[in-house]
Amino acid sequence: MAQPIRVTVWNEFRHEKMHEAVRQVYPDGIHEAIARPLSAQGFAVRTATLDEPRHGLTPEVLAETDVLIWWGHMAHHEVADEVVEDVVRRVWSGMGLVVLHSGHFSKVFKRLMGTSCDLKWREANDTERIWVVNPSHPVAEGLGEYIELEREEMYGEHFDVPAPDELVFVSWFTGGEVFRSGCAYRRGRGKVFYFRPGHETYPTYHHPQIQRVIANAVRWAAPGSGPVPRYGHSQPLASP
Amino acid sequence: MAQPIRVTVWNEFRHEKMHEAVRQVYPDGIHEAIARPLSAQGFAVRTATLDEPRHGLTPEVLAETDVLIWWGHMAHHEVADEVVEDVVRRVWSGMGLVVLHSGHFSKVFKRLMGTSCDLKWREANDTERIWVVNPSHPVAEGLGEYIELEREEMYGEHFDVPAPDELVFVSWFTGGEVFRSGCAYRRGRGKVFYFRPGHETYPTYHHPQIQRVIANAVRWAAPGSGPVPRYGHSQPLASP
Amino acid sequence: MAQPIRVTVWNEFRHEKMHEAVRQVYPDGIHEAIARPLSAQGFAVRTATLDEPRHGLTPEVLAETDVLIWWGHMAHHEVADEVVEDVVRRVWSGMGLVVLHSGHFSKVFKRLMGTSCDLKWREANDTERIWVVNPSHPVAEGLGEYIELEREEMYGEHFDVPAPDELVFVSWFTGGEVFRSGCAYRRGRGKVFYFRPGHETYPTYHHPQIQRVIANAVRWAAPGSGPVPRYGHSQPLASP
Amino acid sequence: MAQPIRVTVWNEFRHEKMHEAVRQVYPDGIHEAIARPLSAQGFAVRTATLDEPRHGLTPEVLAETDVLIWWGHMAHHEVADEVVEDVVRRVWSGMGLVVLHSGHFSKVFKRLMGTSCDLKWREANDTERIWVVNPSHPVAEGLGEYIELEREEMYGEHFDVPAPDELVFVSWFTGGEVFRSGCAYRRGRGKVFYFRPGHETYPTYHHPQIQRVIANAVRWAAPGSGPVPRYGHSQPLASP
Repeated sequence: MAQPIRVTVWNEFRHEKMHEAVRQVYPDGIHEAIARPLSAQGFAVRTATLDEPRHGLTPEVLAETDVLIWWGHMAHHEVADEVVEDVVRRVWSGMGLVVLHSGHFSKVFKRLMGTSCDLKWREANDTERIWVVNPSHPVAEGLGEYIELEREEMYGEHFDVPAPDELVFVSWFTGGEVFRSGCAYRRGRGKVFYFRPGHETYPTYHHPQIQRVIANAVRWAAPGSGPVPRYGHSQPLASP
Repeated sequence: MAQPIRVTVWNEFRHEKMHEAVRQVYPDGIHEAIARPLSAQGFAVRTATLDEPRHGLTPEVLAETDVLIWWGHMAHHEVADEVVEDVVRRVWSGMGLVVLHSGHFSKVFKRLMGTSCDLKWREANDTERIWVVNPSHPVAEGLGEYIELEREEMYGEHFDVPAPDELVFVSWFTGGEVFRSGCAYRRGRGKVFYFRPGHETYPTYHHPQIQRVIANAVRWAAPGSGPVPRYGHSQPLASP
Repeated sequence: MAQPIRVTVWNEFRHEKMHEAVRQVYPDGIHEAIARPLSAQGFAVRTATLDEPRHGLTPEVLAETDVLIWWGHMAHHEVADEVVEDVVRRVWSGMGLVVLHSGHFSKVFKRLMGTSCDLKWREANDTERIWVVNPSHPVAEGLGEYIELEREEMYGEHFDVPAPDELVFVSWFTGGEVFRSGCAYRRGRGKVFYFRPGHETYPTYHHPQIQRVIANAVRWAAPGSGPVPRYGHSQPLASP
Repeated sequence: MAQPIRVTVWNEFRHEKMHEAVRQVYPDGIHEAIARPLSAQGFAVRTATLDEPRHGLTPEVLAETDVLIWWGHMAHHEVADEVVEDVVRRVWSGMGLVVLHSGHFSKVFKRLMGTSCDLKWREANDTERIWVVNPSHPVAEGLGEYIELEREEMYGEHFDVPAPDELVFVSWFTGGEVFRSGCAYRRGRGKVFYFRPGHETYPTYHHPQIQRVIANAVRWAAPGSGPVPRYGHSQPLASP
């Protein structure tokens, strides 16, 4: 039988400690809310948070991680550059990365995109509808035509990322904006999926369809067994 | 000085004859409303309509057309297959094609896409906001962040087209839908741009920003002077 | 346990009957050479050939096919248009399609691409090296950096297809040409993979790495459980 | 009349000073060899080199540059991080960037790609054939089906860059390798083109077709007048 995919859920874990409103929604932290349904489906899940030594992302942890999930918001600047570099190099060598919501401004995502990753935002009373525009993509497995989130923070275009290799979701917001909310990228031997929803004051990660997308993204982003390219000086190939 | 780009605006031209409401908006036909601002900008414009012999698209007309604009709706099936084939082959050999609104279901567009080109639609009271998601694309020249059309027919995802080579616009509709409303493709040596708005009962083609997009799309789709590939049996290349 | 993927290997099966040289390489037909290693890996495989009633592709067979593999060359024009249309519609509704070698000129592939699908070719003494340019793509699983085929027919650029959604392989030929030899597309809910090698006079389909690519492509192209879009008239979505 | 495009050709300018063999090919430096044919075609060209203050790329120079051309090789690490950041931000705000040959390993290119940008290489006796795979792309204007360079350094796949938004050229090398040698990207409001050839010991930049590609790339990468997105907090849009 195949080994389970090893997932590390990384969370900044600050809002939950500082704001009662967030703690009520995510009493054990956003990371636990994300980790639990993944564990229940048979993934081998651990968590890591900003205030642990090396943010919980030691070389050993990263070496044992097939897919890293990333949620951060208020303390992106506190993530050490050397850890960022370790994460980026693990992605290049095959680790999957699933970046959630305000993680668009994390150092790791910006580093892998090469753009500002900026966007419009608003905390108000918007409903979000996440439309599937790529129905044969693995990240859309088991979904309906759209996911409706009654209340979410708005993120609006222009989203300053490279054109995704594959665009899977586009969001609609009550206030008049759209957003490319499910974006798939390849970087080196690794895969990166950005998924928009998940503001800390809304119960988004308790939504079964959102959990489904995250699980799908983990499966899609898991490392494969494709070739490991050799780089550098190279002899001519012998002709038969 | 460069020769002007030669544009042929093709219109089905049936709604305008049959429905007083359409005639009030486009008294000379949609084709004239599209052609006039292009002529005013210096393009060399002619028009062609369904009920002309060979739908106005004789081999001579096609040979003298750099970019063909296509509006059709109720009579797609009346377009002769041989004319469709002529248009497709001209695109392959370099002619640009700008497909508007209900032209998504035209034979020429479906033939070039290889998909059903189906979508959701509704004639109601929707406002449309056409957001630019690709601000450095030539078709977005001179625009603001979005174009707002107070009333338009809704087109919604899933839009069953191949993932566009370049996605330029995404639309928002009041009723809750999104749509990839500006899609750029290359087919053979030709370029194809699909642009969503333009229902016959709304004054969309009188909107200066819509006219701007159409002019931009014509410039983008105009034939270049890239290589003309040779196909078929081929000798090995001499080694220096 | 998951059901095995149901594969139908379609072969024109004419060269093998007419040319002794081909029969020596593929005594039971190219379809059997492709089918056997797939069966051995647990796929549920059947075959179908041109000269069977409806070319072996009855509505029942297509309905029970998850992935269709297509090899054809000298008799593309004998494939009935109604069967082509059935195949295309099955792809749109989710069936995978793996098109091999001279299948680039098949009616089904040209219909799904919307281009001429033309290319350069030469039967000579070329060696082909198929380089992986997308090492994290599922179709590259288990491969080295390149596959070397000592003798193959040359196919050279320009290959007149739409820019692939994902480019997986690029081939090198002794005579000086390159070719985009592994091209992944999505059409409707279905996936299409074009894989270049497999001239009838060479033992290409007996090569373990080529067999590996075909099996990978079948797995990649197998239908998923993503949303089934509804098209046509659509009511506004209720606002919460 | 339109203002000429303002081009800054940046060159490391070290090989030319240190190696007689290079000086014989490029007596005034690679930058002058690149600049001269651009000036002759009416571009407004200046040059800048590593050993000037701030590498010749002061904020003033960057502000007056529409397209920056970059050649570097042995001293990438000497380019100051703050200048790299200035260049990257100018690209995001619209400046075009044309990266040549060993510039694949420059800090600016790696920063914009988010990957290692590694590759295979060999200095030997390879001939390079640069095939056009995208004949309608503006960078292929005026070219034949391929450009042949009798002697060039080999660069081979895997080239560790994001899949290009548009792939324009693929190279063939005598020794058996292929390379995606013309890659177009959008980053923010800016455009980036990577073009492979140009080893310092070969007269590549004296080749008229190579000069043509560089001029085409400059025209393609020149800033447009598309929307300037606003980011950050955003009010809901008024409904009509």
